[in-house]
Amino acid sequence: MNIKKIKELQQWMKEAQVDLSYVSHPSSIAYLSGFESDPHERVLALFIPCDKDPFLFTPAMEVASAKASGFSFDVIGYQDTQDPWQIIIQEITNRYSIPQRMALEKNALVVDRFERLTQAFTNTDFTADITNVLQKMQLIKTTDELDTLLEAGNWADVAFEIGFQALKENISEQEVVAEIEYQLKRRGVAKMSFDTLVLFGENAANPHGTPGALSLQANQLALFDLGVIWKGYCSDATRTVAFKEPTQQQITVYETVLKAQQAAQAAVKPGISAQELDQIARDIITEAGFGPYFTHRLGHGIGTTVHEYPSIVAGNDLRIEEGMCFSIEPGIYIPNEVGVRIEDCVYVTKDGCIPLTKTPKALQVLA
Amino acid sequence: MNIKKIKELQQWMKEAQVDLSYVSHPSSIAYLSGFESDPHERVLALFIPCDKDPFLFTPAMEVASAKASGFSFDVIGYQDTQDPWQIIIQEITNRYSIPQRMALEKNALVVDRFERLTQAFTNTDFTADITNVLQKMQLIKTTDELDTLLEAGNWADVAFEIGFQALKENISEQEVVAEIEYQLKRRGVAKMSFDTLVLFGENAANPHGTPGALSLQANQLALFDLGVIWKGYCSDATRTVAFKEPTQQQITVYETVLKAQQAAQAAVKPGISAQELDQIARDIITEAGFGPYFTHRLGHGIGTTVHEYPSIVAGNDLRIEEGMCFSIEPGIYIPNEVGVRIEDCVYVTKDGCIPLTKTPKALQVLA
Repeated sequence: MNIKKIKELQQWMKEAQVDLSYVSHPSSIAYLSGFESDPHERVLALFIPCDKDPFLFTPAMEVASAKASGFSFDVIGYQDTQDPWQIIIQEITNRYSIPQRMALEKNALVVDRFERLTQAFTNTDFTADITNVLQKMQLIKTTDELDTLLEAGNWADVAFEIGFQALKENISEQEVVAEIEYQLKRRGVAKMSFDTLVLFGENAANPHGTPGALSLQANQLALFDLGVIWKGYCSDATRTVAFKEPTQQQITVYETVLKAQQAAQAAVKPGISAQELDQIARDIITEAGFGPYFTHRLGHGIGTTVHEYPSIVAGNDLRIEEGMCFSIEPGIYIPNEVGVRIEDCVYVTKDGCIPLTKTPKALQVLA
Repeated sequence: MNIKKIKELQQWMKEAQVDLSYVSHPSSIAYLSGFESDPHERVLALFIPCDKDPFLFTPAMEVASAKASGFSFDVIGYQDTQDPWQIIIQEITNRYSIPQRMALEKNALVVDRFERLTQAFTNTDFTADITNVLQKMQLIKTTDELDTLLEAGNWADVAFEIGFQALKENISEQEVVAEIEYQLKRRGVAKMSFDTLVLFGENAANPHGTPGALSLQANQLALFDLGVIWKGYCSDATRTVAFKEPTQQQITVYETVLKAQQAAQAAVKPGISAQELDQIARDIITEAGFGPYFTHRLGHGIGTTVHEYPSIVAGNDLRIEEGMCFSIEPGIYIPNEVGVRIEDCVYVTKDGCIPLTKTPKALQVLA
């Protein structure tokens, strides 16, 4: 349980005159309560009043795990045969009285649940949104969090090594994915932070391509985009390598992406804005004539979730601060020809940044 | 693209006087449009008007894949630098005029997106919910869908076989999970339908335990709960096996669960209600003295998602119909002692049901 952050939220609530917050995203609940769980379609909720004790609401069969997770306040369970909202509304009313102003996590709460609340508390003001409060709370990582993020990053480096070694003529993308995840799972990494991408040749030119039966041929590039969840924190990194001799076009595209990635990474320090970082990488790619093929933002925040605040994108004038963590991942995707992306996540220090993954970025030619 | 189902939704809209539906769950979008994609935090949406052509809205880098998926209407993309809601609202207004009554998928749409719509369309009525319409549309499976569900079930049977063969003294739960998923991925199964559960001994007595470093010992039970996604359809099945000689208590608990599972499965036929099926299994477990240890509902629907409508639970008087698919999964969990669950999903026929998994259910003793 992160009592410091719970108190920080309560402090914000006092200032915003919010008497009750409803935290609904499983990763936000895990961050504050210490209880990690995927409720699927069942209800998992954390209610935090301004000046009393919070309570956690879970499916009945999760109550024991929730209590064992270190959350020291009440845990209320419900059976599959019960209406969870009836219990929630009763608990809120009995414990705290009907809220005058209730804050919601509006990017995670679905409308039918929202309507159960608005129907029960007809005089309550629901305008307040804690999405940004929770995001900003997680924006600056502590050195303890950095240590865990570095461990998660190290597993991504291990994954690249496994993947690179698995490459051989005619192996399929799926087989390489299987090999990476198998070796990681055997070593105790329970979960990837997203579906591992291993894409060969033209398939890598689709920035959201999916691994399939496509088999590796000489003179193709192979793109690896992967990450793990380790002690509740995510890693995310991308490397593109050449299988046997690369073509001149592949080299040109690769070197352009590398230059863009390195320039943006070198520019990271407190005070620069998110959009400036995006622009630095984009300018290099545009000057090389590949501008139209860099079709996405430069990066995204990372922490307890793999994509979080802030977005490193044109139009975002947010100033970078020490302790922020985000990805720097330019790419060039020329349809049906070649796709290259290179990505490290970084932790911002007082005068630069620490990359969370260490696998070399100079073009590796594997045979 | 499933034009028949799109027309079915439009027919419902006519009757409900809804002029525009907004489909937001990726699995619902996949079901209707044929385009399978996980948008993460980006916006993926399918807008279906009552009497004009639908359009699909995706991140720009997904547009090509969406068009290639067989969706024959317009696909509109947006860049990371653009506000997707501004574009959506403009597209809706230009194509169809401002909706008078707009139906939402309220169990899948988050509040901040909902508020963008209510702010833009201040005179629109948003009371209509298509959650149930979409669920009911998917409730009765065709024989084509049955074929795919049987294939998905067959992969679960393959997974059990791999898992059973992997069992040996001191192997960890995680290692067995790694082995199962590796072998499946190598054979072309890209994705499990949920995190594979392999739980040994006491850990299986936690109905939502997670696999870890716990290692297998003689005279323990091993519980496997797993499934795959195959051609867009899910499987989900559970088997519990004994590693070396089971104790008398393990046998008693196992035989009780088996009897409950088989009795409920044998009772499945059109006309019986969901709650009656739950009761049949629960009565057997209660009569054996284990009632308090069967802590969850009997089952859940399955199809393009692993948990869907209907819920096979006390209080649900829904009558079972031919073509429905759902799980039958009683369990007994005696904390710190023993946990057993046995689960098949079934397809309801005109006078009974077909199980989607075939792995034998009599207690297997592996050595």
